[in-house]
Amino acid sequence: MKPIDALVSSLPEGRVLTDPDVIDSYARDRTFVAPGKPLGVVLAASRDDVVTTMRWATEHRVPVVPRGGGSGLAGAAVAGDGSIVLSLARMNAIRELSPADEIAVVEPGVITADLDRAAREHGLMYAPDPSSYEISTIGGNLATNAGGLRCVKYGVTRDSALGLEVVLADGRVIETGRRTMKGVTGYDLTGLFVGSEGTLGVITAATVRLRRAPAAPPATFAAEFGSLRDAGAAVSAIMAAGCQPSLMELIDRASLEALDDWLNIGLEPDTQATLIGQSDATDSQAVVERMERLCLENGASFVAVSTSPQEAEELIRLRRLDYQAKERLGACLVEDVCVPRSLLPDMITAIEETSARHGVKILTVAHAGDGNLHPVFIFDRGMPEPPAEVWAAADEVFKRALELGGTLTGEHGVGLLKRRWLDLESGPVVTEVQQGIKAVFDPLGILNPGKAI
Amino acid sequence: MKPIDALVSSLPEGRVLTDPDVIDSYARDRTFVAPGKPLGVVLAASRDDVVTTMRWATEHRVPVVPRGGGSGLAGAAVAGDGSIVLSLARMNAIRELSPADEIAVVEPGVITADLDRAAREHGLMYAPDPSSYEISTIGGNLATNAGGLRCVKYGVTRDSALGLEVVLADGRVIETGRRTMKGVTGYDLTGLFVGSEGTLGVITAATVRLRRAPAAPPATFAAEFGSLRDAGAAVSAIMAAGCQPSLMELIDRASLEALDDWLNIGLEPDTQATLIGQSDATDSQAVVERMERLCLENGASFVAVSTSPQEAEELIRLRRLDYQAKERLGACLVEDVCVPRSLLPDMITAIEETSARHGVKILTVAHAGDGNLHPVFIFDRGMPEPPAEVWAAADEVFKRALELGGTLTGEHGVGLLKRRWLDLESGPVVTEVQQGIKAVFDPLGILNPGKAI
Repeated sequence: MKPIDALVSSLPEGRVLTDPDVIDSYARDRTFVAPGKPLGVVLAASRDDVVTTMRWATEHRVPVVPRGGGSGLAGAAVAGDGSIVLSLARMNAIRELSPADEIAVVEPGVITADLDRAAREHGLMYAPDPSSYEISTIGGNLATNAGGLRCVKYGVTRDSALGLEVVLADGRVIETGRRTMKGVTGYDLTGLFVGSEGTLGVITAATVRLRRAPAAPPATFAAEFGSLRDAGAAVSAIMAAGCQPSLMELIDRASLEALDDWLNIGLEPDTQATLIGQSDATDSQAVVERMERLCLENGASFVAVSTSPQEAEELIRLRRLDYQAKERLGACLVEDVCVPRSLLPDMITAIEETSARHGVKILTVAHAGDGNLHPVFIFDRGMPEPPAEVWAAADEVFKRALELGGTLTGEHGVGLLKRRWLDLESGPVVTEVQQGIKAVFDPLGILNPGKAI
Repeated sequence: MKPIDALVSSLPEGRVLTDPDVIDSYARDRTFVAPGKPLGVVLAASRDDVVTTMRWATEHRVPVVPRGGGSGLAGAAVAGDGSIVLSLARMNAIRELSPADEIAVVEPGVITADLDRAAREHGLMYAPDPSSYEISTIGGNLATNAGGLRCVKYGVTRDSALGLEVVLADGRVIETGRRTMKGVTGYDLTGLFVGSEGTLGVITAATVRLRRAPAAPPATFAAEFGSLRDAGAAVSAIMAAGCQPSLMELIDRASLEALDDWLNIGLEPDTQATLIGQSDATDSQAVVERMERLCLENGASFVAVSTSPQEAEELIRLRRLDYQAKERLGACLVEDVCVPRSLLPDMITAIEETSARHGVKILTVAHAGDGNLHPVFIFDRGMPEPPAEVWAAADEVFKRALELGGTLTGEHGVGLLKRRWLDLESGPVVTEVQQGIKAVFDPLGILNPGKAI
């Protein structure tokens, strides 16, 4: 009996897909095609399915690639030859939602926005909101420590993760963390699993923190700037004034053009950048008026302010559609560098110079309040992977971010994409330590090999 | 040459103390006497001193106990026979403070409140504020993942730690984390070191996040309740109303009596608990009035509200002096259990029952907004360690906290004190994993052996 047949017979019927055409769509992520052909896909419906799969994988030494919604942008969920894709998408129950303790216990396949909607019914919210939150899963968010628009005020996924249930490489189950707001019993294994891209274990449940949803409707502004540097200065001024925006997004000219081509947003010829900000404070209107003033003082040519939830939704929808607008232009290589906030204008300038020098189209949006930029490098859709000039441009941008005291990845993760630059940021001793940790959890090296570290 | 002489000669003059009487005061923490006699104390003044000490310790296989301010309450910094105490207290420079990026780079010996004061000069604050913050160090706070009064709104030490410089057991130096607000490059080593009580490495610098200090003065209330259960219900009501207090402290009758004996606070005969709350929001007065109303609706017999910073300071000073008031009564065993917030009244009731059943005096204060309680068990100062009935009562309280879905330690750490209960919370597989991680960093087992895990 082939190993895959042993797996099929040890799981309930219908759990394993082996049709090559079907498998293919489970072996890639949003930007990266699969580097090989997996043996099959397990559609886990329970923790027991995950345990069975990992025991089998340990016995047969088969690589396992855990997978959520497949909306990743760094290749963390792509699967290679001879591996098994372990999809957690069907494990999508919200097991518990406690308004009194402001926590929820969820399975990894829960769609991020669904958890937020369930929390809102109790006056609460689930804060982390990656742009893909209508298709991404909590499990994928945990695996990459996803950020999002609101994290400028409410923190990243790590900041909402209290405890985890994890199936280890050999099929043993552990619980990490807690249900309480604080706790320091033993090493922080919860934090270690978050962001580890499925290389240390398979998360089968998470206890997450919910927060009070703002009572009043948010107030929102959108400001147009004739230069990116002015927009960057406005961001610094707004943050330094203690406005605590609940969202602070910068969109560059090239990205605005892509949106305008698609959605006809009425882009003015002189606009080089749009800044969108929001406050969800109880005095949100006053705060946004302060932000408006700071934009005008820093050279904004036009600022629109709105306290209508519908208008706000429309403004922010544009930002959320940004990546789709870029996908219309060709294949995309997406970076995710993060720099100290005050150096945002320097980083944007460097990106523009790189774009010109290499003749590569680069469109940038930024979670500006966090100093987190997403330069998207466009190339011909027909190519199997980015051409040399795109890699050269990407290399320059990564290196410049590190020179500025920044990091390779703010919220998308390392995946496959950034491994070639990892040593520049981490250094050999950190790499050795990380490999040591990996070996503690996964001595056979079967959990998502070749990713994250 | 004896090993200790080799250490003395390899460090700059005056760095090593070997006088037994002097050593003794460096070998204990605030509650636990030293279990043995260390060989000496290194007063490290630089990272190089730490590197030299760790290389020597690796060569001679000597246990090293890193130490900050010595204000710990769980025995994490006590030193045993044949070990070296490595004091980081002299490494107390604030290397950098960037208002634009809202970060500081500090050495481990910086006193917590000093960093906060330095930040306030720029309109910022360092949020974590353990009650001992005038004597505790940032290094000690990182080692225990210290909480404090403000963490109900601003999070614990982990939430302010962005990156670390760490000397490993063999003297190699690594940098973890980043200077940016977000980052997911590799495993979260920063989070792993925070709370690890010096068992994985010696922190020699930290990049920490600062926050905007509130612009308006805070508003504060103090409410008196005739029953602990009513006070607990008021806490739940206040949190559920989305008041976002910046402080929410509960003091029980026994603790109030200790304060009254010492400071003559005018305690009323019917008061069973005092609740102190604060808001630092821009509309702090309105928020505190809402909290006042919720206290009255939940049975408070009296509520005082103040917007005077001096009066607020006076109220909170009482809370901060609480532990000193207890130390006047005898020797103290301090617990630090944390339960889901809604179960705070159940936990308090359980503590009262335990106190009566075992005839042990237990005084409790709680960071009530976090569900984090500090029951203090009083025993005869002359005893070398707590008597059997105190351990039996402590055992009951720990077990009840775990039954309620809580944790052994919210913010003080495991140290020596809680190791005997660790398996009840963590289980054997987690213990095995933690020991595996420990071995990656410290294969010889010389870093603070017998603590944390």
